[in-house]
Amino acid sequence: MIHLSTRSRNTPPSPIRRLAHLARSASEKGVEPYYLNIGQPDIHCPRLFSEGVAQHADIHVSYAPSEGIQVFREAWASWMNREHGIDTSPERYMVTMGASEGLVFLFTTCCDPSDEIIIFDPTYANYMGFAEQTGVRLVSLASAFEEGFQLPDTSVIRKHITSRTRAILLCNPNNPTGVLYGEEEVERLLDICHRYGLYLLLDETYREIVFDNKPVTSAMKIAPDDEHVIVIDSLSKRFSLCGARIGSLYVPSNGLREKILHLAQARLSAPTIEQLAATHMLKQIEDGYTAEVCATYQGRRDCLIRCLQKIPGVTCCEPSGAFYLLAKLPIEDAEHFASWMLSEYSQDGRTLFLSPARGFYSIPGMGEDEIRLAFVLEEKSLEHAMKVLEGGLEAYKSVTK
Amino acid sequence: MIHLSTRSRNTPPSPIRRLAHLARSASEKGVEPYYLNIGQPDIHCPRLFSEGVAQHADIHVSYAPSEGIQVFREAWASWMNREHGIDTSPERYMVTMGASEGLVFLFTTCCDPSDEIIIFDPTYANYMGFAEQTGVRLVSLASAFEEGFQLPDTSVIRKHITSRTRAILLCNPNNPTGVLYGEEEVERLLDICHRYGLYLLLDETYREIVFDNKPVTSAMKIAPDDEHVIVIDSLSKRFSLCGARIGSLYVPSNGLREKILHLAQARLSAPTIEQLAATHMLKQIEDGYTAEVCATYQGRRDCLIRCLQKIPGVTCCEPSGAFYLLAKLPIEDAEHFASWMLSEYSQDGRTLFLSPARGFYSIPGMGEDEIRLAFVLEEKSLEHAMKVLEGGLEAYKSVTK
Repeated sequence: MIHLSTRSRNTPPSPIRRLAHLARSASEKGVEPYYLNIGQPDIHCPRLFSEGVAQHADIHVSYAPSEGIQVFREAWASWMNREHGIDTSPERYMVTMGASEGLVFLFTTCCDPSDEIIIFDPTYANYMGFAEQTGVRLVSLASAFEEGFQLPDTSVIRKHITSRTRAILLCNPNNPTGVLYGEEEVERLLDICHRYGLYLLLDETYREIVFDNKPVTSAMKIAPDDEHVIVIDSLSKRFSLCGARIGSLYVPSNGLREKILHLAQARLSAPTIEQLAATHMLKQIEDGYTAEVCATYQGRRDCLIRCLQKIPGVTCCEPSGAFYLLAKLPIEDAEHFASWMLSEYSQDGRTLFLSPARGFYSIPGMGEDEIRLAFVLEEKSLEHAMKVLEGGLEAYKSVTK
Repeated sequence: MIHLSTRSRNTPPSPIRRLAHLARSASEKGVEPYYLNIGQPDIHCPRLFSEGVAQHADIHVSYAPSEGIQVFREAWASWMNREHGIDTSPERYMVTMGASEGLVFLFTTCCDPSDEIIIFDPTYANYMGFAEQTGVRLVSLASAFEEGFQLPDTSVIRKHITSRTRAILLCNPNNPTGVLYGEEEVERLLDICHRYGLYLLLDETYREIVFDNKPVTSAMKIAPDDEHVIVIDSLSKRFSLCGARIGSLYVPSNGLREKILHLAQARLSAPTIEQLAATHMLKQIEDGYTAEVCATYQGRRDCLIRCLQKIPGVTCCEPSGAFYLLAKLPIEDAEHFASWMLSEYSQDGRTLFLSPARGFYSIPGMGEDEIRLAFVLEEKSLEHAMKVLEGGLEAYKSVTK
């Protein structure tokens, strides 16, 4: 084989997607998996988005401006302002191809190779892929399952800051744990960033999906003009628009925004039709939309937890937001179990596609017996899926004996 | 200002887009620029694509598979096979967000920071942006305006290969020169790649846009199974779908394709609606479609050259493909001239948005008196635009005296 780069050899396959070939094989054999591996909501996107696509089906499909189409940035800022009682300006938002591209832009502009970003373990698995790709060193500080994934003490965080540290990155509400960190926690991190001259990168992709009437936390409410703050966002989750590939970065620093624009110019633009369709949607969407979405996911969370509590040996940490949770299973190797479920087990013609949690931890040896579950299916499906899990765990015992 | 990475400080703004703010100001003052700066065709995309968008307006907008939607890969391979009498398999194509993302994936998988890729000057400006972003060193070998941008001799190329060289990159037909390199030239580069264990990266975004009945050159015809070959492509140009953000990589090497897939998994997927709409288009598009597109651009090329020849002191190199040409102007600083045109000059309420060619050269001091013109407008517009150019050049004399 011809030379392959070290960085590409080190980029891990996605723990969420790498078993996809087994799921396809199961499906071909007539065993349909429940897709609990991926944050792909089964809720349909708002009717207004579909309407927007239809209205723009016949356009001249030209490049959008690299920073995003102005009417979309205005509609997006205006929706955000209405939704959260804030006052952000469209000029501070850059449109990216999903939150993913925004993160790659930030890793590239905030860090040179071997520079460091502090993250909290477990974390969104693809951050590790982006870090390998861009040569950034992620410094992972543990947050413990048993302690509800509380962030470490300030003294612990400060001990890990070096001359190469450039940023602290937090997903809030968190993927994969579903933990919601409140204002005081974000302020604590921001204080540290001020003291050490770091950026605070807040991935708020799940911002509005918060349960039990807890208040939404956003850095755009806490410190909207702070040049240390950058908020990563996406239409994917709250609007069920994963395949639209429209994300955004909120960047108060003009200098940083200019550098991000240069990267954005090199890749030309984000998709045009989706920006126009989303503009149509955002201008007219009713105020209670996200509350309804929350209520749906809260019902699913409650259902999933009820079911999990009935399965012997399974424990989980109740999420306050997003639509994931981590569950500890009575097994040793969740990776092996997940593969086995797809290739060997079925019940009533169904099996499960699970994400082994190991890929969400960067500290070795962590999460070996855990899986991440996305509660993106209807309650009836979740109930049956948990029966399949229970049956699978029982059958798996004899395999590992 | 908080720390910014060296690589982001070194990433140049796009020479094609960095004067966009001046164009906007001109427009706001009622002076409409002719956009000759950017390869944004004014031809409408095929009706079948718009039809495809309308048909899929109401879908569940979910993530696509990271490697691309299978039906799209099949339709794309099948169109390519019909169009060029080849026999490529869908599995070898990876769907990317435009050719741009494909190039970033290749720079990342073929090279580690400080590894080298050989390119030929002048070259597509954004290659330089991708190189800064990914830490790749581009080794530029000059091809001369006066010699019709012939590629350098084999001995010259070989002299520049080091232990860090990983690939040779060629855009064919070429952006910004419009030169079409024939089979023997591609074979010559491929021989060098074999000898030194390098990849040959062929950016064939403009493949079918070839004039004067010259034969289309494609590495997929010459060496479809060669693991050294990678072909970069995009729907943007031949189908006028710049804003769809759908590109592809043809990668015969299984090992390399797997590594690219890991990067693709981290960013999840390319846009779903456009892949489905393009599937609809590719399945039904008539065989003569690209020939018509060629004829249109050939007419525009002829028109543009006729007009340029009438302007005193202007010379250009006649393109055989793509839809760009480089023109030498009787001025010293094309960058200054381009800015001046947008901010100071108008004729009949119009001005020009030009790309200064300097940004397409990586050898310092080259291209200072050259501009790149994209002939993506109707002939009547091109004729008037060239009158505006002639008037502008005349008026500019008194400015620089």
